[in-house]
Amino acid sequence: MIIQHKEGIQRKKSEHYCSGSDRIGSELRSVDRPSPNNTNFSHFCPHMIHSSKSIVNELPGFPAPLPFNLETGYVKVDGLNDVNLFYYFIESENDPSKDPLVLWLSGGPGCSGFSGLVYEIGPLQYDFSSFDGGLPSLTLNPYSWTKIANMLFLDAPAGTGFSYATSEPYNSDSKTAQDTVKFLIEWLLDHPRFSRNPLYVAGDSYAGKLVPLVVHEIAKGDEACDTPYQSLQLQGYILGNPLVNYQTAVNSKFIFVHRMGLISDEYYELARKNCNGEFFYVDPDNVPCLNAIQRIKECISKLDPEHILEVNCGGDQPESDEVQSDYRFNGDVLFPSWHDKPWCRKYSYLLSYAWANNPHVQEALHVRNGTISKWKRCYRNIPYVKDVTDVLEYHYVLTKEKYRVLAYSGDHDMVIPYIGTIGWIRSLNLTMDENWRPWFVDDEIAGYTEKYKQHGYNITFATVKGGGHTAPMYRPKECLAMAARWLSNVPL
Amino acid sequence: MIIQHKEGIQRKKSEHYCSGSDRIGSELRSVDRPSPNNTNFSHFCPHMIHSSKSIVNELPGFPAPLPFNLETGYVKVDGLNDVNLFYYFIESENDPSKDPLVLWLSGGPGCSGFSGLVYEIGPLQYDFSSFDGGLPSLTLNPYSWTKIANMLFLDAPAGTGFSYATSEPYNSDSKTAQDTVKFLIEWLLDHPRFSRNPLYVAGDSYAGKLVPLVVHEIAKGDEACDTPYQSLQLQGYILGNPLVNYQTAVNSKFIFVHRMGLISDEYYELARKNCNGEFFYVDPDNVPCLNAIQRIKECISKLDPEHILEVNCGGDQPESDEVQSDYRFNGDVLFPSWHDKPWCRKYSYLLSYAWANNPHVQEALHVRNGTISKWKRCYRNIPYVKDVTDVLEYHYVLTKEKYRVLAYSGDHDMVIPYIGTIGWIRSLNLTMDENWRPWFVDDEIAGYTEKYKQHGYNITFATVKGGGHTAPMYRPKECLAMAARWLSNVPL
Repeated sequence: MIIQHKEGIQRKKSEHYCSGSDRIGSELRSVDRPSPNNTNFSHFCPHMIHSSKSIVNELPGFPAPLPFNLETGYVKVDGLNDVNLFYYFIESENDPSKDPLVLWLSGGPGCSGFSGLVYEIGPLQYDFSSFDGGLPSLTLNPYSWTKIANMLFLDAPAGTGFSYATSEPYNSDSKTAQDTVKFLIEWLLDHPRFSRNPLYVAGDSYAGKLVPLVVHEIAKGDEACDTPYQSLQLQGYILGNPLVNYQTAVNSKFIFVHRMGLISDEYYELARKNCNGEFFYVDPDNVPCLNAIQRIKECISKLDPEHILEVNCGGDQPESDEVQSDYRFNGDVLFPSWHDKPWCRKYSYLLSYAWANNPHVQEALHVRNGTISKWKRCYRNIPYVKDVTDVLEYHYVLTKEKYRVLAYSGDHDMVIPYIGTIGWIRSLNLTMDENWRPWFVDDEIAGYTEKYKQHGYNITFATVKGGGHTAPMYRPKECLAMAARWLSNVPL
Repeated sequence: MIIQHKEGIQRKKSEHYCSGSDRIGSELRSVDRPSPNNTNFSHFCPHMIHSSKSIVNELPGFPAPLPFNLETGYVKVDGLNDVNLFYYFIESENDPSKDPLVLWLSGGPGCSGFSGLVYEIGPLQYDFSSFDGGLPSLTLNPYSWTKIANMLFLDAPAGTGFSYATSEPYNSDSKTAQDTVKFLIEWLLDHPRFSRNPLYVAGDSYAGKLVPLVVHEIAKGDEACDTPYQSLQLQGYILGNPLVNYQTAVNSKFIFVHRMGLISDEYYELARKNCNGEFFYVDPDNVPCLNAIQRIKECISKLDPEHILEVNCGGDQPESDEVQSDYRFNGDVLFPSWHDKPWCRKYSYLLSYAWANNPHVQEALHVRNGTISKWKRCYRNIPYVKDVTDVLEYHYVLTKEKYRVLAYSGDHDMVIPYIGTIGWIRSLNLTMDENWRPWFVDDEIAGYTEKYKQHGYNITFATVKGGGHTAPMYRPKECLAMAARWLSNVPL
């Protein structure tokens, strides 16, 4: 796959005047949003930060030397609490020297970057069909984004995946964003051969909050003429079924379940009327509204919220670790009740628990001994303060910058439905650049797209038809094609 | 699977007074609809009709004696044109003496009942994975409706499947309905041991027009105290993604594609406004409306209309026989370009062409030599006059009778979307009997259902979540559960 990088989008920094004025920060404050301006590293001191890295040539479960270049490592981003963020870096299998560098953040908060790697867009995936209870086998994902980009998967914040801190750190949206930027700068200082590659910050689900915060941090540092920030070749960001705020997610969910035929016209009208269209901030005394919402919840509570057509494995949504205790390993008869039940995606998540907690795997990945007690795909109870409730204004502020943005949505996701994402994009009041149209893979409609712009900023929205909450998990081929085209700056 | 037939629904005839008044026919005429009252067999003469039947113990492609009782045969329904309708009858694998008898009509018009048998609800299916270009293999369908019912699959009208006429017959909606009733009466006279079983008339797609016409014929004959009609133990009818009229199908399609996220809010609003909500009867001078419709068509024309998430095999919708010529048999290298393309459902249709046109198969099925030139799954250009444009009024008239009705819709079908079906059911102005709720299979939501009633009549509507135009093809397990529950008169 050949990526054509159009000239003109590679660099934008020369157009800034390094006036020292914090335009980005002040604009955000002017709209009375929590201001993430407590960055304490405006004068970045890379020598204070420590990192380690290791080349990984072989992995338990994969039958041969890895046919791609994998590096894992740690970057210390907070010396006070000894916060060390773990990453997986995989060089592009195309042209690593020119292909973009994509930093991938999984959502949660608390979901490992490895989840994005092995279940979404990385070069490895589990061979579920051959699983016999031993160490899960790995196979190659033919639709890995490493076919077109250098991919950097990050475990953040501390407590996520293999990232750790020696004392209990303060985790929050803004702190995670700041730590992520520190990570990125340090990582690039340590990998100068990628420092000129176009850089994109990407992620899905809850990372929909973190990605714009990270980009905003970088833009702010860049405008303040901080050299480490200015050295970042940031071109834009990618958002998959992204959270912008919970109100939008919840309100669009009610529209979505109606449109998808999961509730009746009557139920929807009743709720809309009694709740005045607001299903997130509900007056607790508004009994007709609460009743209407309750009726709707009864219709949808047993669906898999991440893909309304998928098997939900029996109703309730257990946490991944609860699933593990339900289906525990038991000698060589694993998952005792598994064979009696229909396959569901959660079972395949269990393989990552078995694999990543294996001592040989951790050794191969160069995980530091004794740093974490148990690896979890998603650490749901991670200590974390959600101190940024809404990132819409961050997007709005970023529309003043020369960024390219891709926001895609699996259109069968009920968690963060595409309807809300279209809604907030439109609320940015940009100029329509390309009208709604289908986009194709193999002459089949893979979804629909539209594009908006404002001066140097542009945002491409795309649905992934038949995709769920993490679209590449359900439509890998289509999502690789989408990413390849968009990163090459050609139409979807 | 045990079917409990509640007492009280078994027979309803005793409540009629055989006054001779044609209430059903006259009601329909009063609403100025095409009256199908030109039945020329109100005094039915069974001795004038000839039939043949054969037991089939083995079938080419199936590796053992059939583990169910299959009978094929012909019934002559029109002596003038020597019209002989071919059928496949499969006894219930549960309790043939008590289980219902379900007459299944495939749509089209011109689609063989065998298509319903082998691709939807019969006990046999093709083993596509093992197909090597020779005679297609057959395997058992674990979700056959023969697990719970005696199934009678009909090729109608003449020209469909193996049905034939020696001279060119007049085919129309009303004629097909009348011939189908003749077939049913004659078949039951010839199979008296099923004459006391509860009888249901069923079918999908275009059969949505034929099923109520058949039921109406029977009800009319019954009220006119014609003995052959009265002998039918008709309890109700089943409609799968049924056509009621093209206007409803087309108008609901525009709502559907909007709700499913295939067109934007703007496109939908533009079309709705400019076309005044009417997309079927469009004023040819209304250019803004035509333009808006055109824009929408461009968004959806390359989808598989029968299931919007399925592969459409490259855009245009070839007829089944065109597909065959594209992917023709070629020595032992069959489907030369097949392996290069993504699998699509149309390829599996080709297997029925290869199988049903094989001389040994036709011999095994006891097809009369020389009666048809080539078997087609669906004979799209069958000579046929669509003389009943709208069956809504037929449904309305039937609401005065004591029938049980099941109308189900695969909710990803764009041909006859569930939205239109809900719409016309509600327009019957019945009383809501059961509110919208999910229905379950294996503790998973299989779809949603609601129920309406009026005196002895009731209609259950159900979506089949993730199903397409012929829902059991996509969701076989769920559809068998639905049919089993509904035929047993227990809630879905």
